[in-house]
Amino acid sequence: MQQVYINQLSRHAGEEVTVRGWLYNTRSSGKLMFPQLRDGTGVVQCVVFKKAVAPEVWDALNHLGQESAVTVRGTVRADERAPGGFEIDVADAEVLQRAENYPITPKEHGTEFLMDHRHLWLRSRRQHAILLVRHTIVDAVRDFLNRDGFVLCDTPILTPAACEGTTTLFEVDYFGEEKAYLSQSGQLYNEATAAAFGRVYCFGPTFRAERSKTRRHLTEFWMVEPEMAYATLDDVMNLSERFLSSIAARVLEERPEELKVLERDTSKLEAITPPFPRLHYDEAVRILHEGHERGEMEQRFEWGGDFGSPDETYISGRFDKPVMVHHYPAAVKAFYMQRDPERDELALGVDVLAPEGYGEVIGGGERATSLEFLEEQLRLHELPREAFEWYLDLRRYGSVPHAGFGMGIERCVAWMCGLEHIRETIPFPRMLYRLRP
Amino acid sequence: MQQVYINQLSRHAGEEVTVRGWLYNTRSSGKLMFPQLRDGTGVVQCVVFKKAVAPEVWDALNHLGQESAVTVRGTVRADERAPGGFEIDVADAEVLQRAENYPITPKEHGTEFLMDHRHLWLRSRRQHAILLVRHTIVDAVRDFLNRDGFVLCDTPILTPAACEGTTTLFEVDYFGEEKAYLSQSGQLYNEATAAAFGRVYCFGPTFRAERSKTRRHLTEFWMVEPEMAYATLDDVMNLSERFLSSIAARVLEERPEELKVLERDTSKLEAITPPFPRLHYDEAVRILHEGHERGEMEQRFEWGGDFGSPDETYISGRFDKPVMVHHYPAAVKAFYMQRDPERDELALGVDVLAPEGYGEVIGGGERATSLEFLEEQLRLHELPREAFEWYLDLRRYGSVPHAGFGMGIERCVAWMCGLEHIRETIPFPRMLYRLRP
Repeated sequence: MQQVYINQLSRHAGEEVTVRGWLYNTRSSGKLMFPQLRDGTGVVQCVVFKKAVAPEVWDALNHLGQESAVTVRGTVRADERAPGGFEIDVADAEVLQRAENYPITPKEHGTEFLMDHRHLWLRSRRQHAILLVRHTIVDAVRDFLNRDGFVLCDTPILTPAACEGTTTLFEVDYFGEEKAYLSQSGQLYNEATAAAFGRVYCFGPTFRAERSKTRRHLTEFWMVEPEMAYATLDDVMNLSERFLSSIAARVLEERPEELKVLERDTSKLEAITPPFPRLHYDEAVRILHEGHERGEMEQRFEWGGDFGSPDETYISGRFDKPVMVHHYPAAVKAFYMQRDPERDELALGVDVLAPEGYGEVIGGGERATSLEFLEEQLRLHELPREAFEWYLDLRRYGSVPHAGFGMGIERCVAWMCGLEHIRETIPFPRMLYRLRP
Repeated sequence: MQQVYINQLSRHAGEEVTVRGWLYNTRSSGKLMFPQLRDGTGVVQCVVFKKAVAPEVWDALNHLGQESAVTVRGTVRADERAPGGFEIDVADAEVLQRAENYPITPKEHGTEFLMDHRHLWLRSRRQHAILLVRHTIVDAVRDFLNRDGFVLCDTPILTPAACEGTTTLFEVDYFGEEKAYLSQSGQLYNEATAAAFGRVYCFGPTFRAERSKTRRHLTEFWMVEPEMAYATLDDVMNLSERFLSSIAARVLEERPEELKVLERDTSKLEAITPPFPRLHYDEAVRILHEGHERGEMEQRFEWGGDFGSPDETYISGRFDKPVMVHHYPAAVKAFYMQRDPERDELALGVDVLAPEGYGEVIGGGERATSLEFLEEQLRLHELPREAFEWYLDLRRYGSVPHAGFGMGIERCVAWMCGLEHIRETIPFPRMLYRLRP
């Protein structure tokens, strides 16, 4: 007796198989029962004739609660009307565990209720689809970078100092000896490994203790950060373009069913192909000013500021592809950014803004190469010099132009899936008031 | 002018190329200089004739310090005597940054010194080789699981409760509201996602605040944990066997040069093929008793205890493959382990012990399915019931036999590379007294 996964039933048409899963739904009409089984790979409708099975099997299946554990033995039959194209004519079945009063029913539930039951909510069709897209995105990210010759160099989570400011850091007591902080970015460590391996990436969880509760923020999220030695802002833009396009292509190729479940407009993903429009910060500001003049933007944007969510949405709304805004004012960017040699007030950084209001999905740029410049920046930002000595070493020994970017996986998943809220993009989201389950 | 990576020089024999890297080593003989350049992908010897380059180029290269940033332009020439099979006849060169007094010299350095300079030490031949093996192992792990149909489901790092005891947990202040702990394992969450997806894995950093300073312990390490619904102890052993064998095969295939640098006895890795010997705990104890009688083990092992490092080494030393020891006493295993239905004092768990004294690389087994049993275990272990309610839900709604394992990546890297100490297996190790760089 072959044990078969539901997504492979097509290879077993006409054969007798065993499927092991959970009761997803069921209906009955006296002598006929149609239990739908899910096994994590798909859902299949089973057909049980009262006369075809032993009475105890019929009784066991009858009035069985949703999410009860069931295995069935039966023959695979092609049926055009069936969702996956196949049904199972049941010869025998076994109920391993009877579930009663499964909390998540087809009726509408409030978000808090669903979040409290996240461990069960994951079994629902929509959540299942989202996390399969996430799986594919992670896989696409790694494949792309590995094939391009990037070396995975995991950066530490427990760090002695902050990469950018200290107000949003989670603090950890390190053996009562000193304070450690949970990493917000592998950026600085990437610069060390890029000097050792040429092209590297880190890919792990990052943490921000932000007291904001928005649809775009998690306190724990995953980030991939490639970094290249001997590379410039242009190289980062070229890489970002190829990178995002390859992710969109993989999702379209491998997850058509899931995109259907999510009712995603796939034309939006098909549009993600190189080249992406590139906008100098000055031009982006001009677009915002025009928007203000036309009455489409409430306030007039002040040159020199960082873009807020409405600004990003307005700018990206003028294009059907991600937009790369570059040469931001240095004042709104991290201390380690390289300055524009022609206009010192600008940083050689780029933000990639996703269409459809998904905001910044990639942030990156060129890193400063000069020891003196960085020493000055540490002073200006009042960062503890001692904790950055190792980082300064990278400028003492073989400093070269280098550049890279970071992409938050959850923002990318939300965008690819077309989700309103980022909380559904990760199996167990962590937010300001949410540490459970 | 083509910019080329050193590991791709063979494709450019006879062509003029540009290589961008760092000075690895150099020697000179009056009119001839042999700077060796590394670029992260390899090392190439360059040949500079004083007469063939401009005087300022000769002067710039002369007396240049190790790890200075240099780009050279020249012709690729095949040379059998050269390490990579190719040399570059230099026509022009540019020094981007002169490094002076690079701290890591060819002379012997103490471990603490090297660890303090980990950000630079990574550039050394041996460390470089180890981390490339790590890259390949991570890639092999993901490819194996993805191809087998496992779905990546990231489990949270910030958790409200401990999976196994609380004495070795790092504590985090979560917005002053409550305490969070850094995850030691994704195990419990995996059980939830396995019920949703059938077969899943998590792969992320895990944390143990252990006050022990041994060559096997890190406070921050990466772990991969696959979990399968409708699976048993046997399924875990079958999976472990295929899993480790595929990793060893990939390392042998993709990293022959690195294994040479590490002087690894590759016959040890070639031996890692299925089937692995399977030893019941009782048999393992018998082997230890025999060892004691022969005078090869100092103390007589008491049935019921967990194996210490010398025990593991003694047992695994009798085989040239990893050994799978199963059916441990329940008392030494985690509370969530399924009991042997025939001998309640035993747990359906398995530890895979690597050869050559590398100890446990995999630990896993079957998880308890009964709600009542787990409720009782929580009471016995004095674990906060409230924090585990969601976990108990998994037994209320569709409880099925399920099983999985965890493998620490760093132990696996140490084993594959034949390293004495685990601190070299991760870019930036974290240990009891080591939080920097």
